[in-house]
Amino acid sequence: MARQTISHEDGAIYEFTPDLEPIETVESGAELTFDTRDSLDGAVQSEDDVIESVPEEVNAATGPVAVEGAEPGDVLRVEIEDVRVTEEHGRVVTIDGFGLLDEYDEIEAPRTRITPVEDGAITFDDLEVPIEPVVGTIGVAPAEESYTTLIPHDHGGNLDTTDVTGGNTIYFPVFQEGAMLAMGDSKAAMADGEMCGTGSEIATDVDVTVEVIDDPDLELERPLLETDDAWKTVASADTLEEACELANLDAIELLAAEHGFDETDAYTFSSLTGGLEISQVVDPLVTVRNAVPKEYLSNPF
Amino acid sequence: MARQTISHEDGAIYEFTPDLEPIETVESGAELTFDTRDSLDGAVQSEDDVIESVPEEVNAATGPVAVEGAEPGDVLRVEIEDVRVTEEHGRVVTIDGFGLLDEYDEIEAPRTRITPVEDGAITFDDLEVPIEPVVGTIGVAPAEESYTTLIPHDHGGNLDTTDVTGGNTIYFPVFQEGAMLAMGDSKAAMADGEMCGTGSEIATDVDVTVEVIDDPDLELERPLLETDDAWKTVASADTLEEACELANLDAIELLAAEHGFDETDAYTFSSLTGGLEISQVVDPLVTVRNAVPKEYLSNPF
Repeated sequence: MARQTISHEDGAIYEFTPDLEPIETVESGAELTFDTRDSLDGAVQSEDDVIESVPEEVNAATGPVAVEGAEPGDVLRVEIEDVRVTEEHGRVVTIDGFGLLDEYDEIEAPRTRITPVEDGAITFDDLEVPIEPVVGTIGVAPAEESYTTLIPHDHGGNLDTTDVTGGNTIYFPVFQEGAMLAMGDSKAAMADGEMCGTGSEIATDVDVTVEVIDDPDLELERPLLETDDAWKTVASADTLEEACELANLDAIELLAAEHGFDETDAYTFSSLTGGLEISQVVDPLVTVRNAVPKEYLSNPF
Repeated sequence: MARQTISHEDGAIYEFTPDLEPIETVESGAELTFDTRDSLDGAVQSEDDVIESVPEEVNAATGPVAVEGAEPGDVLRVEIEDVRVTEEHGRVVTIDGFGLLDEYDEIEAPRTRITPVEDGAITFDDLEVPIEPVVGTIGVAPAEESYTTLIPHDHGGNLDTTDVTGGNTIYFPVFQEGAMLAMGDSKAAMADGEMCGTGSEIATDVDVTVEVIDDPDLELERPLLETDDAWKTVASADTLEEACELANLDAIELLAAEHGFDETDAYTFSSLTGGLEISQVVDPLVTVRNAVPKEYLSNPF
């Protein structure tokens, strides 16, 4: 079956709500390409285009796509085969009132830097940074609350996590019938932390295969990432300390289930290998991962 | 010149103070082996030995060693050639009132797990974790305040940072004549975060070469790490958010000096590559790194 394109021109959301209406319905196992526009909706095309304050609508997420058979309690598996940038430049910006160092006088906001794409890299003055794309916002319809696409939470959303890239797989809890997958807000490159509030924001095509996992062995509460080497729990909260606690609790649950440990042994074991990683420190909620090497965890579903 | 051994039996400190007296004085360029005891001073030799509360004296740091010629404003370069475990087991423990999940009822404290050393790994039940030693506490005499060896700060101290290992180099600001280097609190293995409050605590021999950098080009305020691939600023503060800010500000200063960027361009560039990493989230102050790949930074001294 040919890979089906889901275009932002057919639909994109700025809020993950419990009652999303799909722009497309696909079967479990479908191969899709999400065509995403940049997080600033094309408003920044030169260094004269600056963003005075965080726009009310930002991080447009192409979709949502309903996946047939996805029911609350299931897990949606999203294998990301490839992410390709589809513009000739990205942009990295400061915005007043946003970013890790927003309150420091020496940081000027707003400012825009255009980062042209050349030979698999973006350039910043005479520096080249290899393109390692990140899908910043990806998620499903939440259980009860609504979250704008600026906010990460248990449904995913604005996770801004460098591991959300080609070759990795992300799993979401299904809270609503059809799951309602949407994604956008890609970056050509981004540091862990996304300190200034953006990476190199850019339009992309994202190839994914979506699959419903019925009756999973694990009751998933929050997103879970699978990389080549590790399983990584992903948690968002008001503070980094709280996000660390949630990510570690989720890792402990996985380790306990796999090895028959009680929580305390799973906790002490978690303190020996892998560990906590920062996703982003700038969104209204911040995001942390807890990596557990695959030597110590098999597929939990 | 033969490598000189500095033994914990000749001297170890539980507090980094401005007025430390050296147990040995060496020349810049000296090759030393620091013989360190485990962070719990040998009190835990079986799983029946539990730690009810954080000991008043913990993380004994072998030393201090004065390095001739080190003056305030200089930088002390500590190249870590090798870290070897010197006991047949480590121990990972929970302690009441300590650790990321200390307030969660499902975590039992105190509890001790002994992790035997076998064939280059430690074992935890039937799981093996490769030995990747970490020197948990390493630092110099501070400028004005005193810090117990439980606390990390600008002088180093209880940094609990996985990059402090063989093959890497750590740089400290010199605040006092002779610098007064001391180290201990090693782990056979530790996760980024050190969530339960310890790694696999173990005695080690640490081979280092110490060197004074006179009149450095960079006025170093806090420790700086050099790995094969990156320069990493290291900052400790009350919260992870504050530590992220300090680590990012230090990275920005390095990038600005190297490339002639102003702070804002250095900030946006820092948001594209490398990024924030968690060292530990459990000590009285928490510790974060900001990695900058070496492609973008040369030796700042």
